[in-house]
Amino acid sequence: MNLELVDYLGVAVFAASGALAAARKNLDVLGLVVIGTVTAIGGGTLRDVLLDRVVFWIAHPSHLYVILFAALATVVWTRRFDPPQRALAVLDAFGLAFFSISGAQIAEGLEHKGVVVVVMGTLTGVAGGVMRDVLTGEIPLIFRKGQIYATAAIVGAVVYLLLQGPIARDIAAFVSMFVVAAIRLAAIAWNWTLPVFTLPERK
Amino acid sequence: MNLELVDYLGVAVFAASGALAAARKNLDVLGLVVIGTVTAIGGGTLRDVLLDRVVFWIAHPSHLYVILFAALATVVWTRRFDPPQRALAVLDAFGLAFFSISGAQIAEGLEHKGVVVVVMGTLTGVAGGVMRDVLTGEIPLIFRKGQIYATAAIVGAVVYLLLQGPIARDIAAFVSMFVVAAIRLAAIAWNWTLPVFTLPERK
Amino acid sequence: MNLELVDYLGVAVFAASGALAAARKNLDVLGLVVIGTVTAIGGGTLRDVLLDRVVFWIAHPSHLYVILFAALATVVWTRRFDPPQRALAVLDAFGLAFFSISGAQIAEGLEHKGVVVVVMGTLTGVAGGVMRDVLTGEIPLIFRKGQIYATAAIVGAVVYLLLQGPIARDIAAFVSMFVVAAIRLAAIAWNWTLPVFTLPERK
Repeated sequence: MNLELVDYLGVAVFAASGALAAARKNLDVLGLVVIGTVTAIGGGTLRDVLLDRVVFWIAHPSHLYVILFAALATVVWTRRFDPPQRALAVLDAFGLAFFSISGAQIAEGLEHKGVVVVVMGTLTGVAGGVMRDVLTGEIPLIFRKGQIYATAAIVGAVVYLLLQGPIARDIAAFVSMFVVAAIRLAAIAWNWTLPVFTLPERK
Repeated sequence: MNLELVDYLGVAVFAASGALAAARKNLDVLGLVVIGTVTAIGGGTLRDVLLDRVVFWIAHPSHLYVILFAALATVVWTRRFDPPQRALAVLDAFGLAFFSISGAQIAEGLEHKGVVVVVMGTLTGVAGGVMRDVLTGEIPLIFRKGQIYATAAIVGAVVYLLLQGPIARDIAAFVSMFVVAAIRLAAIAWNWTLPVFTLPERK
Repeated sequence: MNLELVDYLGVAVFAASGALAAARKNLDVLGLVVIGTVTAIGGGTLRDVLLDRVVFWIAHPSHLYVILFAALATVVWTRRFDPPQRALAVLDAFGLAFFSISGAQIAEGLEHKGVVVVVMGTLTGVAGGVMRDVLTGEIPLIFRKGQIYATAAIVGAVVYLLLQGPIARDIAAFVSMFVVAAIRLAAIAWNWTLPVFTLPERK
């Protein structure tokens, strides 16, 4: 699967999810674009800085036009049509799938070991959304009670690694992206949760 | 215009603005210095990491003394004199002007394209203030309803690019800094705002 | 003192402190591990990115296993035994000591000057905890009124620098770690505070 295409798809859906999140906060139009941009480039930028690569949107600035278009289109769309419930979460699920596997692929391509590939995939997938939530004053989605979010990225990155031997790299990437999106969407649809651990309330 | 001098001016006014913001939060004296330092070096550090340059305050540690002096002078000054209304916003406007154009200049000097120059200028200008606001538990100034803030940086960076052909680089930098500060200060003075977009409240 | 060993100790205690902080927020088990990981790798990652080194946990992925083990052990332990009061603060004090001096040592080994060594040590020591607090929606511990926290790291880094001439590097590192931990623990035990500066309430 073409890595660049995946990054373009990833920034587009994350830009839309960021703009949608910002619209719920009554930000102005530039705020929507800025939050959309941060959501879209956050994870990939962190990936590239940590792996000491040229940052993807500096190397290929056309990502920035895609982001601008996706964020503005989201604004126009939400003005005209009632956004379906959970539109934000669904877009976010696809962004998570695209970026977590692109992060895993790039780390694996640089000959990093299993656990680094998984952590890098997860970071790439979740960091943009975490930045979006921190900037808009929310507890990050990823940390809300029992949400299956980073879990989906982790499982997907592990699947990607396990598929390295048997099948072609592109198919491995496609299958593992499907796994991430499926787990995340299923978790949204059926309210799957992880066990919550709490400290005993003794003092 | 001397790039290093601009960075020194930028860190000094942002250190003061950060210390002033921290003083409003009842932080201790070290908290003031730390918040002032983060505000002052945040944008330029992000710029240097993203562009893979040596971080400016590691290359020229004297910035750190300027920051320490500016932050402590602000503390002393606010103990003795009533800080004029909007002092924070005015200092911040100059920091925004200095750093957004220095970011644009450096990106342009590294042969980056138009949109990357604009994004890098904006990031350099706003990131320190965003970090200041996140660390003190505020919704970042840049995202408050209708604030003309990042807009000023974006317009300034575009002006800087448009002036590249006709006039000398230093004059282009000076003029575009003036544009950033003028837009931001005018927005503060006359409460200029951008339109706010809200999602319809249907469920 | 072996730098790698110090990084292992640092990530272990910070992973435990992060997991403990997350447990107080009713996060799920993966949230605990993620917050523990961010707390543990945040400071050292920032240090390595700023100094343009290979990020320590990418170079030595076994840190990630130590973090996973420490975070999960903390979860199990807090389910079975009542965590002693201030356990979080005490673990955090040791993380601060290990990382602030490792940051100072590495900066000093790269021939950086005094003030850069102190700032880099402080950043390395405090950044993971700041990220932990920002992600869990707290005002960072480091900025709470009068807390002696970054102060301990700064004093320790200065002590480390002063000891460079007279004694062996390893002993200097050990002594200055002891200084950081002692100052921080004493501040917790006897509620030492720094003076708080407030703006006059005139309008």
